[in-house]
Amino acid sequence: MEIDSMKTPSLLLDLDRVKRNAARISDITKRNGVRLRPHIKSHKCIEVARIQTAGHDGAITVSTLAEAKAFAANGFSDITYAVPIEKGKFGEAIDILRGGVKLNLLTDDAATVTDLDNAAGKADVKFDVFLKIDCGTHRVGVEPLSGEALSIPRQISDAANLNFAGILTHAGHSYDVKTVEEVRGVARHERDVMVDLAGRLRSNGIEVPTVSIGSTPTISHADHLNGVDEVRPGNYIFFDAYQATLGSCGFEDAALTVLAAVIHRDRSRKRLVVDAGGIALSKDRGPIHIDPACGYGHVLDIEGNETGMRVTSLSQEHGEIDAGSDEILDRFPVGSRLRVLANHSCLTAAQHSHYNILENGKIVEKWKIHSGW
Amino acid sequence: MEIDSMKTPSLLLDLDRVKRNAARISDITKRNGVRLRPHIKSHKCIEVARIQTAGHDGAITVSTLAEAKAFAANGFSDITYAVPIEKGKFGEAIDILRGGVKLNLLTDDAATVTDLDNAAGKADVKFDVFLKIDCGTHRVGVEPLSGEALSIPRQISDAANLNFAGILTHAGHSYDVKTVEEVRGVARHERDVMVDLAGRLRSNGIEVPTVSIGSTPTISHADHLNGVDEVRPGNYIFFDAYQATLGSCGFEDAALTVLAAVIHRDRSRKRLVVDAGGIALSKDRGPIHIDPACGYGHVLDIEGNETGMRVTSLSQEHGEIDAGSDEILDRFPVGSRLRVLANHSCLTAAQHSHYNILENGKIVEKWKIHSGW
Repeated sequence: MEIDSMKTPSLLLDLDRVKRNAARISDITKRNGVRLRPHIKSHKCIEVARIQTAGHDGAITVSTLAEAKAFAANGFSDITYAVPIEKGKFGEAIDILRGGVKLNLLTDDAATVTDLDNAAGKADVKFDVFLKIDCGTHRVGVEPLSGEALSIPRQISDAANLNFAGILTHAGHSYDVKTVEEVRGVARHERDVMVDLAGRLRSNGIEVPTVSIGSTPTISHADHLNGVDEVRPGNYIFFDAYQATLGSCGFEDAALTVLAAVIHRDRSRKRLVVDAGGIALSKDRGPIHIDPACGYGHVLDIEGNETGMRVTSLSQEHGEIDAGSDEILDRFPVGSRLRVLANHSCLTAAQHSHYNILENGKIVEKWKIHSGW
Repeated sequence: MEIDSMKTPSLLLDLDRVKRNAARISDITKRNGVRLRPHIKSHKCIEVARIQTAGHDGAITVSTLAEAKAFAANGFSDITYAVPIEKGKFGEAIDILRGGVKLNLLTDDAATVTDLDNAAGKADVKFDVFLKIDCGTHRVGVEPLSGEALSIPRQISDAANLNFAGILTHAGHSYDVKTVEEVRGVARHERDVMVDLAGRLRSNGIEVPTVSIGSTPTISHADHLNGVDEVRPGNYIFFDAYQATLGSCGFEDAALTVLAAVIHRDRSRKRLVVDAGGIALSKDRGPIHIDPACGYGHVLDIEGNETGMRVTSLSQEHGEIDAGSDEILDRFPVGSRLRVLANHSCLTAAQHSHYNILENGKIVEKWKIHSGW
């Protein structure tokens, strides 16, 4: 199908770029001798995960149990649910485990370890459980130098119905810095605090099967990964305006755009409005700490070339664009097609039901997005 | 079902509040003798639209053709698609019309009128077409005092395959003001420019069947609606933190909350993290121009009482909450349930597949949300 006969708004996914992005991180992990366990929350798509895990052991990371179930139903059998577990989800997790999947959980809460051990015992199952470490993001996890960083691993190891899987962290704060040099610093710190903690646990007699780290910026810029067992980047498979602005990739690596139609043209204010609004793009504000004028996405023409325009404002089904000049306005009458390279591909993808796969300038397939909880 | 056995995150909809909000706007329209054509983009739910339109003629407004199709399939036969039409959607609009639905379109673009007339002629259908007016929001529409405000209605009236349906506006800028008195000013202006334009069109010999206005803030505070034929408020059915902060309702009128589970508790930073993040809540920033500390939503306990906390930061599946005190932290260990009254109910609802209907403290039904494009 031709792009300009597609319904708008809809997602376009550039397959060549996806394959190139997959190969790039695959190479980094092979060169460093670490397991690649990509975070599929960024795309929620079976076909994309198959591209990512080709040549690897098929391990994946998920952010919801709905993702775990959808991927388990499609042959993925080693899944880490990388959000701290809480008791309301024990039943569903047990069901997934009983379906024959190795579902790894994580926690940073001693009371939850006790509850999970009891629930696993009653259900006659065993869970592999990571301790979540806060390596500086301050979102979830325990501090690596805290007493809990030693006591919870021991508690998990000693629990009758749990296996201690290791320690896991995510350097989310690598998104908040401004330069590649700062990303490198975060990457070094993420690795070093984890390797240090693993050493202290081992010298305290606690086996640490896996040291798991990962974010797209830190994997893109790590100087080495000695002492690390696996990495869990997600966003790299599509990249986006955020990562390109941060220097993790070039804008020509960003694989996901939203096709939109011009629905309004205002010559006096030199503005365009498209039918991709806050739902189609998401309201993620992007890398405003680096590019205060980033708006809600770069505006490309239908071939994918930069027009110089940005989406400046969003309402539910309207995206407002500053065109700036009459020359630009002349190019895009009402009914024209544009493509928006969104700020944050993970959140944009999650707004849609499927990807339209773009290869050699044509739409060749539709791939489903497994949303919900 | 009990609330605390629900999966998280999930939407809770308080049915009594929905009915009360529906009755309130229904009364205003009856008292003012105007047609109520509620905007169902706020909820995308057949059952909610039936509550809204009870005692009225069943006319509705939609923001996507997917909504139009879903509601047409469920018995709604008078539908205004209130986003400017562009040629890529002509075919789908013709299909809906042929299905026996009165689908009203709108435009602000003379070239599109010509194209639409040609397409309707080829398909042997007739469309009812509104001129979209910009009453001050500066999003879409023509200026009421511009030449196009007279020429496009004449063009539509003269077109062989189009009926001129009237003039339509939306005072979206009523969301951007700070006080109820300012909302009243926007409401007066919205009404007066439209009634004035209708008069000028009529004195130019152009029949104006319908003068259509509407937003939740302006309908809530209009002093009178003389000269107006129909109103299209949407958000009022649920209200939200935005409208309560703006004074369109009280916080006790807000009907939609997101049930979430505590997944992390941090005593040193006095923080909680819940499993409702940027996808479950949307990243709408809310009424920050009035309440700079509004964050991404008020945090309520499971009974729906304010806790004093706000969601301060969002990532994909994590919502971060400043708890402020040890007393609050003691109340909410990992595994506790909280409810988040989101900033903007329309965008939050659009993130989910269904509402869980809450009546007398229990979940009594599930109602589907018709998303997508």
